Amino acid sequence: MLYKNAGVDIDSLNVIRKGIGRHATKTFSARKRSEFGLFGGIFSMGPDILISSCDSVGTKIIVACATGVHHTVGADLVNHCVNDILTTGALPLFFMDYIGFSKIRGKIIVDVVRGLARACRNEKMALVGGETAQLTRFYPDGVYDLVGFIVGTVNKKNYIDPAARIKRGNVIIGLKSSGLHTNGYSLARRVLLRKYRLSSYIPELRCSLAQELLRIHRSYRKDLEPRLRYVNGLAHITGGGFYDNIKRILPRNSSALIRKKAWRPLPIFNLIQKLGKVPEDEMYRVFNMGIGMCAVADEKHLRHFRALRPKIIGEIVRGDFGVKLE
Amino acid sequence: MLYKNAGVDIDSLNVIRKGIGRHATKTFSARKRSEFGLFGGIFSMGPDILISSCDSVGTKIIVACATGVHHTVGADLVNHCVNDILTTGALPLFFMDYIGFSKIRGKIIVDVVRGLARACRNEKMALVGGETAQLTRFYPDGVYDLVGFIVGTVNKKNYIDPAARIKRGNVIIGLKSSGLHTNGYSLARRVLLRKYRLSSYIPELRCSLAQELLRIHRSYRKDLEPRLRYVNGLAHITGGGFYDNIKRILPRNSSALIRKKAWRPLPIFNLIQKLGKVPEDEMYRVFNMGIGMCAVADEKHLRHFRALRPKIIGEIVRGDFGVKLE
Repeated sequence: MLYKNAGVDIDSLNVIRKGIGRHATKTFSARKRSEFGLFGGIFSMGPDILISSCDSVGTKIIVACATGVHHTVGADLVNHCVNDILTTGALPLFFMDYIGFSKIRGKIIVDVVRGLARACRNEKMALVGGETAQLTRFYPDGVYDLVGFIVGTVNKKNYIDPAARIKRGNVIIGLKSSGLHTNGYSLARRVLLRKYRLSSYIPELRCSLAQELLRIHRSYRKDLEPRLRYVNGLAHITGGGFYDNIKRILPRNSSALIRKKAWRPLPIFNLIQKLGKVPEDEMYRVFNMGIGMCAVADEKHLRHFRALRPKIIGEIVRGDFGVKLE
Repeated sequence: MLYKNAGVDIDSLNVIRKGIGRHATKTFSARKRSEFGLFGGIFSMGPDILISSCDSVGTKIIVACATGVHHTVGADLVNHCVNDILTTGALPLFFMDYIGFSKIRGKIIVDVVRGLARACRNEKMALVGGETAQLTRFYPDGVYDLVGFIVGTVNKKNYIDPAARIKRGNVIIGLKSSGLHTNGYSLARRVLLRKYRLSSYIPELRCSLAQELLRIHRSYRKDLEPRLRYVNGLAHITGGGFYDNIKRILPRNSSALIRKKAWRPLPIFNLIQKLGKVPEDEMYRVFNMGIGMCAVADEKHLRHFRALRPKIIGEIVRGDFGVKLE
């Protein structure tokens, strides 16, 4: 099975995003710093740069609704956004959320926000507001969409500009993910729910399917914050997997070689690949495969990352082929 | 008919918001300036304060989907957000959008963003990014939800603190709305679509129902920006109508008296009230009734507003009764 068969068409999404980018770039002034399509929006303000990002938890929300566990998706959303702006070197300032629904128990919303607020506290960020919107007869009963907006800040001199920092010969450090994070759920559910129920205990996973699918998206802030000066580029492995996300930070005439043998994918990914007969390449295009964040660094700085037990999963090489997994 | 009958229960939404607020306030640090529940999130950054807000266009989106006109809701969203932060004296810096859908033509999304981008340009703000999320089998086919996130800034000395500025005897100036703006659509559709089609020409409105319902939410930024120093408080009349929105800016022991006779509601509101047999009080609790923004000012500064052809719709009086319409 391909991601497309599960209803998500990354290629046509990319065409849409190009159309969007054309309109968006018309709104840029001198204070808007960079290209449309990076992980975070970038805006200059004196010596500091404001970095913002917007995300949802995608169809992971369906798992939350099916199991009745709602605080975890709140934390997923916060951590996803934190990781996105971290790629520029930015640390969190504040967060807002949107919850859209038609008919839902109030307790569910409060649970979501409890998870959001706890994660915001962990990330030292204020949850400054949000919108709880009831849209009559629009959403299916009992479900809701959840969207997060983050604003962070980085001093100009600490801003991570991968185009300027990344050099050929740099190593690519892979940091472990906690599971699917918030990507590939349409494909994962399609494949897994043909055989299992959410409540099924799965020996390979040593937990129930629901527990595995609701694992909270890991935040890399605590681990990376003290090491940002040694980082030349960060790629948060989300929708688009290794290909689209690492490509975004590659300088001209530089490409990334990733050695798949350098780490062992988490059991959940093996299970999805086997059950769904998903081509291996498609797996690395959709999922994080156990590596949720890639940090590009000088080999001589590797010792600063040792405490994180990093996997050296690849390197930056000459060439224009983009991202190659071997 | 009441708003509740159309599926929207403002009271229980307010209970939910209280639950949310309890969790959110736990994330506040010294840099987070004010109470949860204002129009915009507030965050100190040096001499400037960042003001942010998050909103959707609610079920106005259903009208857009039914008519195939999508650029207007993009502009609605931007202008709604601009007005929200304007209430603190803040001017727009940047904007992000979220579009969630399951199955939709790509052109629709590009249309939405075209409207967003044009409105951002008008408001001198950058559309720095956003998220276009395809959630398989979650949204009904052909529809999407649209969420906007704005960040603006105001210098500390220009920040409009209504608690400090508003005095008894101040007048309440009403600024005209362009129509329903983005509120009360669940009730409006329920009432109007019993009798009319969206394509029906309605003599009282001098246009089709679709044209009336898709009128773009007016931005008050251009009119109010040069006059902000004469403003003691601003209430954007959105969900919750006159009651909830004006209440938010009232200082202790001060209340607002609104004279309904001071202006003539737009024909669309008369039509909804008549057709739906909606109690008059409910109308002023759900809709803007033709007044989209209320500015509180010293009577002696009224001349600065003259060019806007303002309606003096009420005043600030002693008492703790909140907002009273007579």
